[in-house]
Amino acid sequence: MNILEIIEKKRDKKELNKKEIEFFINGYTKGEVTDYQAAALIMAIYINGMTPEETTNLTISMSQSGDVLDLSKFGKNVVDKHSTGGVGDKVSIVLLPIIASLGIPVAKMSGRGLGHTGGTADKLESIPGYKTDINMDNFIKSVENIGISMITQTMNLAPADKKIYALRDTISCVESIPLIASSIMSKKIASGANKLVLDVTVGNGAFMKDIEHANELSKTMIEIGKLAGIETVCVLTDMNEPLGYAIGNALEIKEAVQALKGDIPKDLKEVVLECGSYMIKLAGMGNNIEENKNRMLENIRNGKAYKKFLEMVQNQSGDITYIENIDKLEKAKMILPVYANKDGIIEEINAEEIGKLACKIGAGRVRKEDIIDKAVGIVLNKKVGDIIKREDILGYIHINKKELVEDAKQQLIDIVKISEKTLPLDRKCNIIAIHY
Amino acid sequence: MNILEIIEKKRDKKELNKKEIEFFINGYTKGEVTDYQAAALIMAIYINGMTPEETTNLTISMSQSGDVLDLSKFGKNVVDKHSTGGVGDKVSIVLLPIIASLGIPVAKMSGRGLGHTGGTADKLESIPGYKTDINMDNFIKSVENIGISMITQTMNLAPADKKIYALRDTISCVESIPLIASSIMSKKIASGANKLVLDVTVGNGAFMKDIEHANELSKTMIEIGKLAGIETVCVLTDMNEPLGYAIGNALEIKEAVQALKGDIPKDLKEVVLECGSYMIKLAGMGNNIEENKNRMLENIRNGKAYKKFLEMVQNQSGDITYIENIDKLEKAKMILPVYANKDGIIEEINAEEIGKLACKIGAGRVRKEDIIDKAVGIVLNKKVGDIIKREDILGYIHINKKELVEDAKQQLIDIVKISEKTLPLDRKCNIIAIHY
Repeated sequence: MNILEIIEKKRDKKELNKKEIEFFINGYTKGEVTDYQAAALIMAIYINGMTPEETTNLTISMSQSGDVLDLSKFGKNVVDKHSTGGVGDKVSIVLLPIIASLGIPVAKMSGRGLGHTGGTADKLESIPGYKTDINMDNFIKSVENIGISMITQTMNLAPADKKIYALRDTISCVESIPLIASSIMSKKIASGANKLVLDVTVGNGAFMKDIEHANELSKTMIEIGKLAGIETVCVLTDMNEPLGYAIGNALEIKEAVQALKGDIPKDLKEVVLECGSYMIKLAGMGNNIEENKNRMLENIRNGKAYKKFLEMVQNQSGDITYIENIDKLEKAKMILPVYANKDGIIEEINAEEIGKLACKIGAGRVRKEDIIDKAVGIVLNKKVGDIIKREDILGYIHINKKELVEDAKQQLIDIVKISEKTLPLDRKCNIIAIHY
Repeated sequence: MNILEIIEKKRDKKELNKKEIEFFINGYTKGEVTDYQAAALIMAIYINGMTPEETTNLTISMSQSGDVLDLSKFGKNVVDKHSTGGVGDKVSIVLLPIIASLGIPVAKMSGRGLGHTGGTADKLESIPGYKTDINMDNFIKSVENIGISMITQTMNLAPADKKIYALRDTISCVESIPLIASSIMSKKIASGANKLVLDVTVGNGAFMKDIEHANELSKTMIEIGKLAGIETVCVLTDMNEPLGYAIGNALEIKEAVQALKGDIPKDLKEVVLECGSYMIKLAGMGNNIEENKNRMLENIRNGKAYKKFLEMVQNQSGDITYIENIDKLEKAKMILPVYANKDGIIEEINAEEIGKLACKIGAGRVRKEDIIDKAVGIVLNKKVGDIIKREDILGYIHINKKELVEDAKQQLIDIVKISEKTLPLDRKCNIIAIHY
């Protein structure tokens, strides 16, 4: 077997077998297959596609290319949750303490933000003292002791995926369903879950811009899950508007804490409850979705979810006085209201544009090595569908750099589109579809 | 414009414009476009194809990526000849002195052999003293003074083609008609010709294995020629059997010298006359193909062609006593007859296999840096269609390495396939088709 034959097969639209895919992944991980050979093969895959078997074999090969986390001591229903990314997406921070408070073990590794989307690990780190880079032994011990740990990816998980992901970016091969699906699933398999709820975000602020592609991606991931023995549920959620009101690291922690105490924006609530109820189901803790939602709401009401969050923060060396009094969290030097310049109904708040604006004022990274400003961001005052009057506050810009203020204000005014209707729109449902 | 957009366009089967193709070729030549980006684009071109306009723009861009030879002082009908490569292919060495003897200027740059195919430059260098690496001024002067010069490629012609050609080899993207056509044509355009006869070899010993692909390649090259202003004729010739009897560098020089003196194998004669008569036509020296052939034969008979060859050898510092007495040319230590082991008719002498055998005993290069043994090779005694009897000589192996003798003999016996028929087969015609 050699790489030339493998490239030739996929070039000619033939199906690669397991051994051939393993040969490529192992060779590329070791550097025996060159970047240009991988590029040619990836382009052939992009154009000619892959069968579900090929995609699954690619996923499994990539998942085995580095460290593999063993969570089997937590039983055979270890549920993980993953989002394909969004703007204002603090779902994990709200959802996972609720799940843990119901007695379901949560061992969650999260990524960092890049471009217009944020990352859970960055957000958690805006809690003073909170350590996300703890080692595997302590990670496992935390889950054993208190039922939950949320960290950043510290192991060498799926290095082949990392290499291929970086390569795809430089050769215009990003938007390929088999490649996106195998990338997501390989990391999840390597991180030890055997049940999985995927929040597949759809819209301008997400990776998948339309429902058709999101459906296709979901079906592909579920198929991979089936063939790889990982029961998978995909919840398609809207990401045309930021989720909740806050965008920015410390700002989202505040909103998440308030949510865990019961004050939870409608759209965020929908996504949290939908994803969570399927997590409960996959964990074997209840098949009735509505009942599962009620159990989650009950643990918000009775304070157990919030208490579990505090416990987790403390266990990861975070200072819980910042949670108990969220006003202590780092604030930007300037918190500036932005006013509407006409009456009407809010018709659009483009999530991608808001994400880019937040990134620009320091809340996100353009390049991986950029340092983010935890305090800054945007807090919306209104959401799509709301009535607004001239001089009403659209939102607040939390900002440290004076030179960016005027531009940021103007951009927020431009992003929040107001139509001249007079009746409020029905708030849309954020859950688009469920695939399992 | 950036390379990602260009890759994306071809990935999505859209047509690239002239500026985009130039951007890629210039960027890749300078190293601003990486190997992996080029690999992705080349694979997309391989799978999605190119229009004649795209192929022509690629050809012209590559031809302008380095030095461009100006032969305009030889008039507006400067005819070049090129073969897509074969085994025992000494056509240029016989043909071009004939053409020059008819008063048509010949400025020919030839390649070296690689793998199972030989190269004209290597063959000429088996004449003691013959210099193939002369500079451009002397090259042009030689053509001015004596009407002919045959050298190796000393200028930096079409470096983009060199880079892409080498890359294609490592990413299974060799057999693409637009890429092969643009590679051949870019070098020819850079080497200054404005009329072109292409000997498109077809068969196991050639690059094109079947007539369909050879037809397609020919039509593509003629189309490029039309769009680029280079009148092009393609002569499709059979390369399932070696051309002539000799395979090996000095051995082929001997056969070529004998041919120029009138003793020319039938298949070689056909190819030489067909290609030559179209060269004469393109040079504006006669439209009647049969008449042109007769003029060529006449110049063999009257010794003018042979004299022109001697003149060229002398002009390029070659020792003509080795031509006047070809027995002086370097000989292998062992010249071993190989005998038939049964009676019958020769049904096949696989050119590729003979080429590989010659290469193995030292007549060719496996890698570019290998040094070839000028003296060794194979001289067939019979050709396809000939009657043969048990104990007749199939051919002679000219060899210097004792340890390879037994294996080489056995291989020659295996390659020459004898059927148990009793009537000789009709010798096939070596000219398959003409495209213009």
